[in-house]
Amino acid sequence: MKKHILIVPGDGIGQEVTAVGKQVLDRIAEKFNHEFTYDEALIGHVAIEATGDPLPEETLVKMRASDAILFGAVGHPKYDNDPSAKVRPEQGLLKMRKELGLYANLRPIKLFDELLEASSIKADILRGADILFFRELTGDVYFGKRERLEDGNTAYDTMIYHKYEVERIARKAFEAARTRSKKLMSVDKANVLESSRLWREVIQKLAPEYPDVEVEHQFIDAAAMLLIKDPRRFDVVVTGNLFGDILTDEASQIAGSMGMLASASVGDSTGVYEPIHGSAHDITGKGVANPLASVLSAALMLDISFGLKAESEAIIAAVDGVLKDGFRTRDIADTTTDASKILGTDAMGAELLKRL
Amino acid sequence: MKKHILIVPGDGIGQEVTAVGKQVLDRIAEKFNHEFTYDEALIGHVAIEATGDPLPEETLVKMRASDAILFGAVGHPKYDNDPSAKVRPEQGLLKMRKELGLYANLRPIKLFDELLEASSIKADILRGADILFFRELTGDVYFGKRERLEDGNTAYDTMIYHKYEVERIARKAFEAARTRSKKLMSVDKANVLESSRLWREVIQKLAPEYPDVEVEHQFIDAAAMLLIKDPRRFDVVVTGNLFGDILTDEASQIAGSMGMLASASVGDSTGVYEPIHGSAHDITGKGVANPLASVLSAALMLDISFGLKAESEAIIAAVDGVLKDGFRTRDIADTTTDASKILGTDAMGAELLKRL
Ligand SMILES: CC(C)[C@H](C(=O)O)[C@@H](O)C(=O)O
Ligand SMILES: CC(C)[C@H](C(=O)O)[C@@H](O)C(=O)O
Repeated sequence: MKKHILIVPGDGIGQEVTAVGKQVLDRIAEKFNHEFTYDEALIGHVAIEATGDPLPEETLVKMRASDAILFGAVGHPKYDNDPSAKVRPEQGLLKMRKELGLYANLRPIKLFDELLEASSIKADILRGADILFFRELTGDVYFGKRERLEDGNTAYDTMIYHKYEVERIARKAFEAARTRSKKLMSVDKANVLESSRLWREVIQKLAPEYPDVEVEHQFIDAAAMLLIKDPRRFDVVVTGNLFGDILTDEASQIAGSMGMLASASVGDSTGVYEPIHGSAHDITGKGVANPLASVLSAALMLDISFGLKAESEAIIAAVDGVLKDGFRTRDIADTTTDASKILGTDAMGAELLKRL
Repeated sequence: MKKHILIVPGDGIGQEVTAVGKQVLDRIAEKFNHEFTYDEALIGHVAIEATGDPLPEETLVKMRASDAILFGAVGHPKYDNDPSAKVRPEQGLLKMRKELGLYANLRPIKLFDELLEASSIKADILRGADILFFRELTGDVYFGKRERLEDGNTAYDTMIYHKYEVERIARKAFEAARTRSKKLMSVDKANVLESSRLWREVIQKLAPEYPDVEVEHQFIDAAAMLLIKDPRRFDVVVTGNLFGDILTDEASQIAGSMGMLASASVGDSTGVYEPIHGSAHDITGKGVANPLASVLSAALMLDISFGLKAESEAIIAAVDGVLKDGFRTRDIADTTTDASKILGTDAMGAELLKRL
């Protein structure tokens, strides 16, 4: 198979982790006789520094011309401490999602057996947990009108949903539920929000088309609590952009660390594969970032964008192998980890390649 | 001391748990020589059934005439499954908060030693955790304009904050931080939302007035993750209405169960004291609801509205005593609990009274 992959490292540890992701893709191409070509492009803070624009036109053109995108992270503390900054790295990320029509963000939460003890949650609560989140990614309060009123003392954002937006993400989630345990949880705040009541209505109206899927509605506050109390109660979850942002970050604790979680953003065209974790400037450049989320994002790419199941599974098996052999990055190490087996980003990458 | 207390049981288990809360207040009055008088009023689904209005005028009049309010819960599954219902129990709750100017919702998350093992989070992650949330309660997307557009296919809510709203809740949180570990965490989504950028600006501008308090800003997604990963990193937290709703429900897992958590809503006039848990229709009428959150709400009332510290502490000591003696309601029992010590609502109330 011939595929053209765009690497968009972005900010902070994005550079370090996508480098390992790319090595793994290269090895897969070699081993399974595919031809992957690569290009690279800027986004976020590094793009602002180079061009003044968090999503330069050149990047968008390259994105549209690629078969899939391996993405790093965006963000920089400089902007976080300056609420009045007009140009921000995150604008690049949001614009990319909108321009590419990436309305469905899939976030699988899968716990590797070896990491059962790395979580702050008790092992017997976690064992067997396996969740697939569908986070809507191009609507909600992320894209509604926002404004600072004239005197500067009032600000608003608009949480808005259209029926077709809810419908298309819900269909993806219903379909996924069919291939799994046939249970779908929809999360909203319909006891207060009108946009949530529209959300709930649309789900209720679709449900009869999927009679084999059992639908459960939860309010976001209850869901945030239940996720910790009883993660095995969750299987396929569909929710809006903001609630999905919050719930999936929280759910990362089920997998032991954010450093283990991959995501796929798909929709109208090219898919984007990226870790759930952010730019992590506190550890940038230290060579300690966990590259496994980027590697697992590459695995998702092979599976979802290219339909290469065996190749995807080979990567997951390699990650499993490295963990079984006791290797850990700092974020997933615990007190029982042999100090000589705590690896940096590149050494972890090298261990992975050995097993591929 | 002479005080007039309004009991507003509301829906579901609200009736059962406030009954125990009232018994405890009565015993305190007797023991410490106070004179507490009571009245009762309707809110939520029961008020709709009786009057058509989720917050009847008569209830508001009684609320304004009281020195403090012991509140149960509102909500009914009937409305949750009918997104198009025009009159809803929650409207009563929201209107009460607005009418009484209850802009500050204090939610202390304190873990009783005896319940260390009742949580799904590991005991050594939890031990010593002690968080005080300040949730803004009369602004945000709860009170901004909301609308279903004409064709029925688009709905929006407005997430809006005014500077004075952020300022007054922030001051309360800063003051509280001074009396505790002098650390304040503010939670927002300033990398995306304009209302969050206003929120962050206001906090940053107030900070120099409290030079002894160290301020940390977190995004809501990161905060939802950190709360589980490292709850001891949190001390005083201030956040908006929606993010506070989500974070405090999630935080209930730190205390072992929602059934243990009390809250105080204060502001311009009469304070309202209520459990964080909801109406829990699945267990209503079965006599198994945990009354401790209502009892601890009564303790908060004595402390915050009446300044009766010793009385408040007597209640907390009684709760501690009951737990130390091994008594549990179902929600906080675990596999090591002696079956004969798993009590219903009233029996738990009786054990408490014995210790007062
Ligand atoms: C960086 C930020 C804008 C982004 C989001 O909120 O969507 C991130 O948290 C994510 O989840 O991808
Ligand atoms: C019942 C509901 C409207 C309410 C809220 O969201 O504020 C509840 O969850 C709470 O936290 O008091």
